[in-house]
Amino acid sequence: MAQQRRIQLCTQRPTSTVCVLGTELSLDIQGSAPKDATAFHVQGTPGVKVYVVHETQSVKLPSSVTRWPLATGTEVLLTMEAISKDVGDEKVRISYFGEASGVPVGRAMLYLTCVEVSLDADTGRSGSVSKTLVDKATWTWGPDGHGAILLVNCDRDDPKSRLMSDSGEPQSQPTDNRDTVVCSYEDSIALEEYKHVLGGEKLAYAVKPSQHQEESIFYVEGLAFPDVSFSGLVAFHVTLLESPEKGLLETPIFTDTVVFRMAPWIMTPNTLAPLEVFVCSVKDNEDFVAAVSALAEEAKCPVTICPLPENRNDRWIQDEVEFGYVQAPHKMFPVVLDSPRDRGLKDFPVRSILGPDFGYVAQETPEKTSSLDSFGNLEVSPPVTVRSKEYPLGRILIGSSFPRFGGRRMAKAVRNFLAAQRVQAPVELFSDWLQVGHVDEFLSFIPAPDRKGFRLLLASPSACYQLLREKQEMGYGEATMFQGLHGVPKPSINEILGNEALRKFNAYAQSCISWNRDILKQELGLAEQDIIDIPQLFQADDQARAIAYFPDMVNMLVLGRHLGIPKPFGPLVDGQCCLEERVRALLQPLGLSCTFINDYFSYHKFAGEVHCGTNVRRKPFAFKWWRMVP
Amino acid sequence: MAQQRRIQLCTQRPTSTVCVLGTELSLDIQGSAPKDATAFHVQGTPGVKVYVVHETQSVKLPSSVTRWPLATGTEVLLTMEAISKDVGDEKVRISYFGEASGVPVGRAMLYLTCVEVSLDADTGRSGSVSKTLVDKATWTWGPDGHGAILLVNCDRDDPKSRLMSDSGEPQSQPTDNRDTVVCSYEDSIALEEYKHVLGGEKLAYAVKPSQHQEESIFYVEGLAFPDVSFSGLVAFHVTLLESPEKGLLETPIFTDTVVFRMAPWIMTPNTLAPLEVFVCSVKDNEDFVAAVSALAEEAKCPVTICPLPENRNDRWIQDEVEFGYVQAPHKMFPVVLDSPRDRGLKDFPVRSILGPDFGYVAQETPEKTSSLDSFGNLEVSPPVTVRSKEYPLGRILIGSSFPRFGGRRMAKAVRNFLAAQRVQAPVELFSDWLQVGHVDEFLSFIPAPDRKGFRLLLASPSACYQLLREKQEMGYGEATMFQGLHGVPKPSINEILGNEALRKFNAYAQSCISWNRDILKQELGLAEQDIIDIPQLFQADDQARAIAYFPDMVNMLVLGRHLGIPKPFGPLVDGQCCLEERVRALLQPLGLSCTFINDYFSYHKFAGEVHCGTNVRRKPFAFKWWRMVP
Repeated sequence: MAQQRRIQLCTQRPTSTVCVLGTELSLDIQGSAPKDATAFHVQGTPGVKVYVVHETQSVKLPSSVTRWPLATGTEVLLTMEAISKDVGDEKVRISYFGEASGVPVGRAMLYLTCVEVSLDADTGRSGSVSKTLVDKATWTWGPDGHGAILLVNCDRDDPKSRLMSDSGEPQSQPTDNRDTVVCSYEDSIALEEYKHVLGGEKLAYAVKPSQHQEESIFYVEGLAFPDVSFSGLVAFHVTLLESPEKGLLETPIFTDTVVFRMAPWIMTPNTLAPLEVFVCSVKDNEDFVAAVSALAEEAKCPVTICPLPENRNDRWIQDEVEFGYVQAPHKMFPVVLDSPRDRGLKDFPVRSILGPDFGYVAQETPEKTSSLDSFGNLEVSPPVTVRSKEYPLGRILIGSSFPRFGGRRMAKAVRNFLAAQRVQAPVELFSDWLQVGHVDEFLSFIPAPDRKGFRLLLASPSACYQLLREKQEMGYGEATMFQGLHGVPKPSINEILGNEALRKFNAYAQSCISWNRDILKQELGLAEQDIIDIPQLFQADDQARAIAYFPDMVNMLVLGRHLGIPKPFGPLVDGQCCLEERVRALLQPLGLSCTFINDYFSYHKFAGEVHCGTNVRRKPFAFKWWRMVP
Repeated sequence: MAQQRRIQLCTQRPTSTVCVLGTELSLDIQGSAPKDATAFHVQGTPGVKVYVVHETQSVKLPSSVTRWPLATGTEVLLTMEAISKDVGDEKVRISYFGEASGVPVGRAMLYLTCVEVSLDADTGRSGSVSKTLVDKATWTWGPDGHGAILLVNCDRDDPKSRLMSDSGEPQSQPTDNRDTVVCSYEDSIALEEYKHVLGGEKLAYAVKPSQHQEESIFYVEGLAFPDVSFSGLVAFHVTLLESPEKGLLETPIFTDTVVFRMAPWIMTPNTLAPLEVFVCSVKDNEDFVAAVSALAEEAKCPVTICPLPENRNDRWIQDEVEFGYVQAPHKMFPVVLDSPRDRGLKDFPVRSILGPDFGYVAQETPEKTSSLDSFGNLEVSPPVTVRSKEYPLGRILIGSSFPRFGGRRMAKAVRNFLAAQRVQAPVELFSDWLQVGHVDEFLSFIPAPDRKGFRLLLASPSACYQLLREKQEMGYGEATMFQGLHGVPKPSINEILGNEALRKFNAYAQSCISWNRDILKQELGLAEQDIIDIPQLFQADDQARAIAYFPDMVNMLVLGRHLGIPKPFGPLVDGQCCLEERVRALLQPLGLSCTFINDYFSYHKFAGEVHCGTNVRRKPFAFKWWRMVP
C-alpha cells in the first residue's frame, strides 16, 4: 500500500506542496469547499494522475463525469510518476459549483513538485543494494523472506590498532565495533573518506537538500549481536521535512524506513568440513601435537599450533573458544566466541585469532564461572528435523545440572546469548553428573553416508560391560588393560567385571547418559538407528562424580572422515585392543577412518582427551540462515 | 508424542524400574543380548502393554510371531495403563535364543512399578486446573491456543501492610509480589497455611515421596510483567529422581514441565463502558468538579474525587496514571500504571488506588522525564483490523518527537514496557510540536453505532478556518469569542481571519496533525469516513510550539454516549456558539450527547482541558487477550 498524505486546500490562495515519488496525495476536498458548494470539478496537468474515489469506485481522470458531488465519502487522490524539473511545474485545479449555477463559486489551486526520497538497502538479500516494492519496514524469515542483513563489525581490520590500554593491560574487546572509525582494507580507500554521522550520541543526521538528483551512500556497521535485551532488529528512517514559513518548525511530510537484522553467530557441527585445526604445544605433549598434526595432514587440513607463551601451559583449547561465523548476502567471516573460563589461554583469542575478517565476541559474566562454562560443554548437532520442525543449522547442546537440584550451570549471559541468536535453538542436557561436566565427555557427532547424514555417538557403560562379558565368555578374562603404560595398574577383564562398586557406578553413569539419550532423541528427532553406543567406563571421584575409567573415546576429533580417537588401552585379545576393534567395527562401515591417539599421560590423566585438547574451525553451512524460520 | 525412556537390561540379575503413567519405556534389547543370541522372545504380565517395532511396523503382543530377530532396527516398547498397587507388581521377561537351539541362551527380567507424576495447571484456560494431553511445555496464542496464565500479584490484599518504610518515606512499590508472603482474603484461610517453597534464592523444592496416591497443590504468584528482558514465559519442572544405590547421586528418570505466561497489562479505550471517573479537587475548580460529577451522574458512573491533601494541588490526574487491567481465566482485576511524571499526585496511586484486587505497576526511568512522559500522552485505540491483521484490543498510541531531530520522547523504560505487553502493539505519533506534547491534545476516540464502532476525532485548524470563513460570509464577521470570560480579550471572526501570523501557524499545526492522520490511517486501518475533524485553533508559544487558542475540544471526557467537551467560547451566531453548534452537528447524529464544560480558568489557562483533568477506569474488554495472535 502506497503511503498517503492528506493535503489541505484553500480557495483564498494557491497551495504548494511536494509529492514524493511512489506516494499518494489525498486532497481535502470538503475542507476547502465554499459554503454553498455542492459539487466540484478537478483537473490536473499531464504529469499528475488524478483519481476520484466516489461510492467506493476509483475513477481515473479525465473521465466522462465532469462534476462530482461533494459527498462525505468522495476523495481525490493524486500520484506523480516522474521527478519534477522545476519547483511547482505540475498543478491541479479544483473548481467548486453551487446547486444551480454553471459558474464556479470558488477555486483551489495546488502546485506540485515531485521529488524522490528513498532509503534503500539489500532488502532482497542479493548482496547488493536495490530499490524494492516490498515493505522495507518489516523483516521476515524463510525462503521467501525479505529484509536487509547487517554484520557485527567484530573483526579487527587494522592489525596496528592498539591491543593494550595505557596501563599495559590488554583491551578487553578491541574489535572494530568499539570505535566510530570505519576501516576496511578491502575497500582500499582512505579511511578519512568515511565520516561517522550516526550512532552513539548521534541520533540524527541532516542530509542537505539539493536541486539535482543526488544519491547519498551510507555504510552501516553492526555493533552488537542479538541478545536477551536486543532483538537484533535495527530500524533506520529518512524523513523529508518541510519548513514552509520562517520562524516555524519543520513539518515531516514523508518518512521511509528500512529495517536490518543483525546476523546471528552460528556454530558449526562436526559434519562440516574442517578448515583449520588448533592444538596447544605445552611442556609434555610433543607426541600428541605430532599425532594431531599427522591426522590433520591426512585430512588435508592445516594445523595451527598455539605456542607455550600464548597458552601459558593451558592445553584445553576446546574449552577456551568456540569457532563460528557470521553471514550476510554480501560477506561472511569466521567469529570466535571466547569463553568466560579464562585460564592460561585467556588472551589467545584476542591476541592471535581476532584480526582482519576474523571476528571476536565474548560475554561478561558477573557470577563466578564453573567448569560448565568451558566450551567443551558447548556443542552443536548437525541439521535435524523434529516432528516436521526444521533446524537446518542444527541445535546447540549445552550441559547443565538440570533437572537435578542446584549444581553447576553455564553462565546465564552465555546461555542468553546462544538462545538470542535464534537459528540453532539450544537444548540443555544433563552433564553435572560428570566431574568436569562437559557434554563432549559423553557425546559426539560423526558424518555418515546414509540416514540423516550423521550418527550420534554416546558413551555407553552397558555396551562396555556387554563387550567385556563377551570377551570373558570367550576365555579372555585374564586379558588386562593399560598395557604399555608405565606406572598404571593393569586390571584384567575378570577384575573389572568382578568390581561391584564399579558396576554400580557405571549403572548410575549409564542412567545419566540414558536420560540425555532420551532428550536427544526427542529434541533432535533421532531414532535408535541414528545412535551408536561407544563402549566406555566411568569411575567415581570422591564426590561420586564421574571421570573416564580409560581414555574417553567419544571425546574425539572429527576431521571429515578422519577420526582422532583417544586410545583406550583396552584388554588385548589376540594382540588387538578389543575396545579399538569394537569401535572400528562400528565406525568403519560408515566410511570413517579411525586413528587412535595416545593422550593418556598428556590429557587423560588431567581429565580431558583429544577433543578437549583440540579445536576446529570449519566451513560454514551452505544453507543461508535467513532462509530458515526459527 | 509420549516421553520415552531407554532401559538397560541385564541377563545376570533382574532389573527394576519405574514406569511413569503416560510414558513409554524403550528396552535396550541388543545391549543385554548374550554373545550368540540371534533372536528374542518377550512376554509381560497383563498390566504391561508390550510392542515390538520391527521393520518400522509396531506389533502389539501377544502376536502370532513369537521370536523376533535381534536386528538393529528392532525395538521393544512398554507402556502401563494403571498405577501399581505394590512395588514391582508387573514384570517383563526377555528370552534370548541362539541360531539353532530351542532353549534360551539367556534371560533378562524387568520388574516394573507404575507411578503417576504430573504437573498440571490450567493449560486449557478454563479457569481451573486439569490434566491435559496438550504439550504443557509450550504456550500458544490464538483461539485454539493452550498454556496456563499467571497474574502478577501486583495488588495489596492486606490493607494493614506497611506503606511506609522505617524512615517514614512511602515504600516505592508495596505490592504483594514484593514479598514472599501469599495472602488472599478471598480464600479465607489462615495465611500461615501457605509456605513459600520456590522463588528468590529457592530454585528447587523436594516433594517427599509417598506410598499412596497423593496430590500436592502449589500456588503460583507472578512477580513481574513482561518487559524488554523478560518474555513473560515462566517454566516449572517436576522431576522424578531415582537413587538406586547408596552413595550415588540421584538420577533423573522423568520430568514434566508446565509453562505459564504472565498476563499482560491491558489498556482500555474510550469505547469501553466507564466504571469510575476520577477528578481532583484543587483550590479553584469547584465548578469543574461539579460539572464532571453531573456528567458522570448522567452516565450513571460513580465519581471518585481526589482531595487536595492527596493531590497537593496537582489537577492533572490524566497525566499521573493510566488505568488498565490484567486477566487470567480464573481472575481479573484492574491495575493502575503509574507515570514517572511524579508531581503533586505522585503518592496518590500507591496510597489511594492500590489495594485488595487493585494492582499497581510503575517503571523506573533513569533519565530525566519530560512532559511527554505524562499519560495524557498515552492513549489506546478501539479494536481495529489493519490489512487483515487484527488488533482486537486496539493499539496503544504515544506521542513522540519522531520523525524530527532530537526533541522530547517518552522514557524508554515505559515504551519498552508497553511494547513488551504485546497485545496492543504501540504506534508512535508526532506530538512534540505541541508545548505540552500529548496525543490527547489533538485526538480522541468516541463510540459510534456504525462502521468500526467508533470515530477518530482530530483537532482541525483547517476545519475551524472553513467554519469561521463561512460565518464571515454569512455576515457574522463581527461576532466575538470568549464572551463572558472576564479579563480575556475578545477577538472577532474578522480579526481572527485577518491575523496572518495565526493563519500561518495554524497551517503548520494542521500539517503536523495531517502527518499524524496519515500514520493513524495506515497503522489503524482507517478510512477518511472513520475520522471527524473537530474545529480547533492553535497558537505559538515563544518557542513556536503549539498551545490551544481556545479550549481544545478533542480533549474531552468520554463516558459511554455522554461527552464532556471543553467549552470553546466560540463566536456567538444568533446567540449560539458556532463551534459548539458545529460539534453537536457532527456528533449528535452518532447518538452522542454533548455537554460543554467550562474549564477556561481552571484548566485551559494552565494548558490542559477536561481530559487532562479527569481519568476513567473502564470495563475490561469482553475479548480475552490470549485468544489473539500478536
